[in-house]
Amino acid sequence: MAFNIPETDQKRVVIIGAGFGGLKLARKLKRSNFQVVLIDKNNFHQFQPLFYQVATAGLEPSSISFPLRKMFQKSDSMFIRLSKVERIDHEQKRIYAELGYLNYDYLVSALGATTNYYGNEELQRNTLPMKSIGEALLLRNTILTHFEKSISTRSYSERQKLIDVVVVGGGATGVEVAGALGEMKKYILPKDYKELSSKEVDIYLVHSGARLLPGMSEKASRDAEQFLVELGVHVIKNTRVTSCDGEYAYTNDNRKIEAKKVIWAAGIVCPKLAGTPDAALGKGNRLKVNSLLEVEGMPDVFAIGDQALVSDREDLPFGHPQVAQVAIQMAKVLAANLKNGDRAKWKPFRYKDLGSMATVGRNRAVCDLPKFKFSGFFAWLTWLFVHLMALVGVKNKVFVFINWFWSYITYDQSLRLIIRAERDTPQV
Amino acid sequence: MAFNIPETDQKRVVIIGAGFGGLKLARKLKRSNFQVVLIDKNNFHQFQPLFYQVATAGLEPSSISFPLRKMFQKSDSMFIRLSKVERIDHEQKRIYAELGYLNYDYLVSALGATTNYYGNEELQRNTLPMKSIGEALLLRNTILTHFEKSISTRSYSERQKLIDVVVVGGGATGVEVAGALGEMKKYILPKDYKELSSKEVDIYLVHSGARLLPGMSEKASRDAEQFLVELGVHVIKNTRVTSCDGEYAYTNDNRKIEAKKVIWAAGIVCPKLAGTPDAALGKGNRLKVNSLLEVEGMPDVFAIGDQALVSDREDLPFGHPQVAQVAIQMAKVLAANLKNGDRAKWKPFRYKDLGSMATVGRNRAVCDLPKFKFSGFFAWLTWLFVHLMALVGVKNKVFVFINWFWSYITYDQSLRLIIRAERDTPQV
Repeated sequence: MAFNIPETDQKRVVIIGAGFGGLKLARKLKRSNFQVVLIDKNNFHQFQPLFYQVATAGLEPSSISFPLRKMFQKSDSMFIRLSKVERIDHEQKRIYAELGYLNYDYLVSALGATTNYYGNEELQRNTLPMKSIGEALLLRNTILTHFEKSISTRSYSERQKLIDVVVVGGGATGVEVAGALGEMKKYILPKDYKELSSKEVDIYLVHSGARLLPGMSEKASRDAEQFLVELGVHVIKNTRVTSCDGEYAYTNDNRKIEAKKVIWAAGIVCPKLAGTPDAALGKGNRLKVNSLLEVEGMPDVFAIGDQALVSDREDLPFGHPQVAQVAIQMAKVLAANLKNGDRAKWKPFRYKDLGSMATVGRNRAVCDLPKFKFSGFFAWLTWLFVHLMALVGVKNKVFVFINWFWSYITYDQSLRLIIRAERDTPQV
Repeated sequence: MAFNIPETDQKRVVIIGAGFGGLKLARKLKRSNFQVVLIDKNNFHQFQPLFYQVATAGLEPSSISFPLRKMFQKSDSMFIRLSKVERIDHEQKRIYAELGYLNYDYLVSALGATTNYYGNEELQRNTLPMKSIGEALLLRNTILTHFEKSISTRSYSERQKLIDVVVVGGGATGVEVAGALGEMKKYILPKDYKELSSKEVDIYLVHSGARLLPGMSEKASRDAEQFLVELGVHVIKNTRVTSCDGEYAYTNDNRKIEAKKVIWAAGIVCPKLAGTPDAALGKGNRLKVNSLLEVEGMPDVFAIGDQALVSDREDLPFGHPQVAQVAIQMAKVLAANLKNGDRAKWKPFRYKDLGSMATVGRNRAVCDLPKFKFSGFFAWLTWLFVHLMALVGVKNKVFVFINWFWSYITYDQSLRLIIRAERDTPQV
């Protein structure tokens, strides 16, 4: 059965994924002559850079999410559908999803990337990912539940397993979550869990490379590591977590770390839709595109964001970094091209690197701007400002600002709630 | 095994339940000479009067919840435990819970009340309760998911089942949730779901009695009903929903209402702990207490709040109403009594009725104060003020206020998010 969407004279652009890229594209096209169909698993856009604050109970999910429908209330040729896309038939120009099939004139794949376990099923089962709001909330609930259990546990070893955390992966996600956990250990635990000796809580950051934040400058790596060490995080470099049984994490250099909670932030991979020709797939399942963002061998199919691997540029053997700015800039170029009927005049994508940054707890961040690298308090203010401005929705900005301000002056938050959407009344 | 709580010279007061009664009692005792153990299933206090706003996406769960540990950070002889209490052994003065057993000197049962299905298992399976934050969130997710499904449904009958809602029970909860759904139909749906004709959405409020809000004045009942009708809610009185199969709700006068969503707010019952002598149980499993709140036949066991049925007062054949104010006032009296070593000087509980109120959508509420009954805009402002002041936590007050203000000026909210704490990454 087909999607319940009217067939009109307008050309139809189908966008799969409402992340940074998909959302920006939809917003750019909402007043165009296209019929736009935006498909996502969720009914909201999620602001991924702040997942780690949801996981560590610093922000609410709703503060970093924005309902898609509200964003497009005034666009009449915009259709939003919650569905999981399963297959592309690029010869028929049609996609298949849970809701049925849908024909397209242009298809834009903006599926982003998900957690990469490198095929290790045990790791996938026994570690906690953090690539969605739902996963960040699950992590929050797990952290809080483990602390609750720990104070009723008399066995020393069992208690260590409940309170210690291993973070795998020293990219921005790993560094930021380790920093937030370090803050929690320092400021929250001694107050909330007086029965626990917060000194007993160990936070490990295990990173396979020689330096943290490999995408950033050497200065940023060095400073971030120092900030983490100051927060009491054990930084272990040049080491891989190779397995994890839910009680211990095991490393390639034969360490055995006691911890039930292993946060997996050690790599990403793109989801692969059935029907994608092998020739179109690059490393990590990214879709090979030319500089016009057209997917190789799939006419009128485009890819943007983490999924897009620009492969006609000799100066970029690995494509662009898989970050929000690339996705947003690609969306802008693609929107302008699609709106320009004359394909000969389409413009190639050129990435303008605006810099990158990561925060490590209170008052500390590292920033690499194109012409200026700095870290510490001023970098932290920059980080706050940039992230606040990037959030969708005025109210979200206001709420995140108040939350941050509150945390800053009180050293504490009141969001440590273990909430699940479920029936409390026992089913008979 | 015993709870992991130190045995000291202090007398131990065990409070089961951190609702209005249990929480107030714990706060009153936190600087006393008692060792206090507060046990709840959740790690937070939840503000029940606003559950309906969480369910209808007007407020966030975190705005009406407050973490228990944060509240008692400065109390050294206060112990908080997350556990489900299973049994009382009042002869041994001991309770049994998931975490083990715990001896008490004084036990206070403040378990509140849960949804009453009157033994009808089909109703319990196929209707949605709203007696906890988790249940309110489940209801929110269900409402939003059904709207999403409805726009992809071509069958008229199937669509009606997805968009129509039956609310069972015309007490404050039923009236308030029906009002909020009416608002949603009027202001939100036409904007968010343009593909849907919002006129097709029917909201039914089915009430067994002759007038809504039976606990309030006749004027309040009449005005509340009129406000609901103005919002387009179908009010059906003198009627009971007798069964519900997930597709239709059936009533005792042979109506058959097409609706997958039936919200059950038609009665409450107290949970019954094993070990409670039958003689101590009154109607709806309430615990019979004297005016000192001592449970009949269970020495040193007290009950407060919804659970307490004061049965030594001839003027009160049905005890006190099961509302927050009674719980709070009982907690205050009991705290003062417990702190007074001389049992002969303990004071009996006397309820001071401060009035009751209910709101029906924007700008409308009904208020019964002891000397003054009024409804409309001023009643609504009173309702807002009273509820804002009653919330625990300054930040919660601020956030709820901003949310309400925002809703008021924009006629819209940005909280319509379907979020679940779960893994998105498919498990292998």
